[in-house]
Amino acid sequence: MTEQIVVIPGDGIGQEVVPAAVRVLDEVGEFEFVEAEAGDQVKAETGEALPQETYDLVASADATLFGAAGETAADVILPLRKAVDSFVNVRPAKAYPGVDALRPETNLVFLRENTEGVYSGHENRLSDDLSTLTRVVTDSASRRLAEYACEFVEANENGSEEFTVAHKANVMRETDGRFRDAVVDVANERGVDTDEVLMDAFATHVCLDPTRFDVVVCPNLAGDVLSDLAAGLVGGLGLLPSANVGPERALFEPVHGTAPDIAGEGVANPAATLFSAAMLLEHLGENEAGENVRSAVEAVLEDGPRTPDLGGDASTEDVTSAVISRL
Amino acid sequence: MTEQIVVIPGDGIGQEVVPAAVRVLDEVGEFEFVEAEAGDQVKAETGEALPQETYDLVASADATLFGAAGETAADVILPLRKAVDSFVNVRPAKAYPGVDALRPETNLVFLRENTEGVYSGHENRLSDDLSTLTRVVTDSASRRLAEYACEFVEANENGSEEFTVAHKANVMRETDGRFRDAVVDVANERGVDTDEVLMDAFATHVCLDPTRFDVVVCPNLAGDVLSDLAAGLVGGLGLLPSANVGPERALFEPVHGTAPDIAGEGVANPAATLFSAAMLLEHLGENEAGENVRSAVEAVLEDGPRTPDLGGDASTEDVTSAVISRL
Ligand SMILES: CC(C)[C@H](C(=O)O)[C@@H](O)C(=O)O
Ligand SMILES: CC(C)[C@H](C(=O)O)[C@@H](O)C(=O)O
Repeated sequence: MTEQIVVIPGDGIGQEVVPAAVRVLDEVGEFEFVEAEAGDQVKAETGEALPQETYDLVASADATLFGAAGETAADVILPLRKAVDSFVNVRPAKAYPGVDALRPETNLVFLRENTEGVYSGHENRLSDDLSTLTRVVTDSASRRLAEYACEFVEANENGSEEFTVAHKANVMRETDGRFRDAVVDVANERGVDTDEVLMDAFATHVCLDPTRFDVVVCPNLAGDVLSDLAAGLVGGLGLLPSANVGPERALFEPVHGTAPDIAGEGVANPAATLFSAAMLLEHLGENEAGENVRSAVEAVLEDGPRTPDLGGDASTEDVTSAVISRL
Repeated sequence: MTEQIVVIPGDGIGQEVVPAAVRVLDEVGEFEFVEAEAGDQVKAETGEALPQETYDLVASADATLFGAAGETAADVILPLRKAVDSFVNVRPAKAYPGVDALRPETNLVFLRENTEGVYSGHENRLSDDLSTLTRVVTDSASRRLAEYACEFVEANENGSEEFTVAHKANVMRETDGRFRDAVVDVANERGVDTDEVLMDAFATHVCLDPTRFDVVVCPNLAGDVLSDLAAGLVGGLGLLPSANVGPERALFEPVHGTAPDIAGEGVANPAATLFSAAMLLEHLGENEAGENVRSAVEAVLEDGPRTPDLGGDASTEDVTSAVISRL
């Protein structure tokens, strides 16, 4: 049966990098692509950043590839993560030969809790002076993430058999304490080694020596900030893919945004989206095709052609064709 | 009148670097030093990490110099910040000639909100599965911080006349939205320019180009993590001083911890504590003495002697004597 992939280019360079990934996916498999809208542009046209139709498509598709959204990013991506019941956001942050990186030895994977923490959406304006946000942490979500992390390191996906839990349980004793304890309990039950680090200390140490870490399991906002930090160490957001994984479905997206400064010029770097497509292929069980795409992108990063963000003058099109010729 | 400075060496290398700073302070002024206890060691002896006597001393002294505390760090430092009614944590993160830094061009000052956010201390275990933390943001605390930030840039303390607000208002719309709006309102009222950045984007951008930023105003946890990230860019926590400033009193502390791996060996780098002492002098109005200490420490960082963390083999004592000879 031909698998269905929903593609949502969204705004800005999303309109350039998602079609590039569709071309590549088309080369390595037989898929039915269904295009859907989300983001600033469709909001301007219809009043809604995330049309119900898009939500429903994503909620029933085998996999979704999302580009980027502008001002409306949170209105689009947070509900879409729910649409696929995504409990983990997988964010590899790796430096590649041929790409200028502050720390070329970086090779990390963040496994970010994707449903709760400060993202739970409970905010209140209690007075003219005071607002609150209720941060939620449950054992169930923490344990579900930990099970995934254990499987991830058991499969040795990033070359390590243990993981690090990053948290701020010295201040958020009850909530991050619960998170840490639940994650470590699951790991102990399964015989997986863990260590732990405070999220602030992680920020210092990962700059000083990223090889101290490998797979990093963390609450939602910690994962957001620390993975973006890792992006800074490997040369920018242009290279980071991500997967929002649920029990059945998943949504893949580059970590970068719409890049309004270069949108429309046809020079956006498609690498992060192509790496996201490789993760999508693996999610569909097409491991060989996934690895094939990943190696082809890595080879092009090393040998060129390169888009302007990497110091070259190639177009998105040039890079995509070069990747396809390497498949 | 001789001003009173409470000194709390605390645990680990706090016992080495605080006496070093006292020696230096003694060289440049007439102070009455009152030593007080806090941390793991006094907890082991008395059951209390922060004796009431210490709290009371800090709450009435002109200024306090704190070293570090181990496991009990949060039990010590969070109440002590309250003891001085500290509404802002000032954290300069600067690279120095002679010190290996990932980004030698870094020169940032974080002005971290120091009373609320996730540090408000409201956590609840609502069920066996679920815990919550109530994050609090008020206009009053945000505006108070903003007033300080405006004065800071008006005095051109870090060479800039504007500041950046870092936040996560795209997700924490009500709370960080309130923070951002209150801070920007105050700046507008006073004619101070601001720009804003999402805290995750900040983490990427500061790695790629720290010169994009200068003075960074942020909520409590954001300031914690982002300033530690900046520490990673300038060569580690060993160099970062900080000031917890209240309306009348203030508490100064190196950003680093107790460094159990080297504690007791007499080789701890006193630079962060000496820079903290320089900030303390300025807080007491001794601007010349403060600048004198700061330049002397910078000169020693550049020319040596250096402690092992900076690649040398000098002792804390050697470095302190070298600083004193430069005063
Ligand atoms: C757009 C925003 C809501 C989102 C997040 O905070 O998760 C983004 O920063 C990300 O990391 O995908
Ligand atoms: C020890 C801890 C409570 C503290 C904080 O989170 O503020 C520390 O990390 C700091 O930054 O001074």
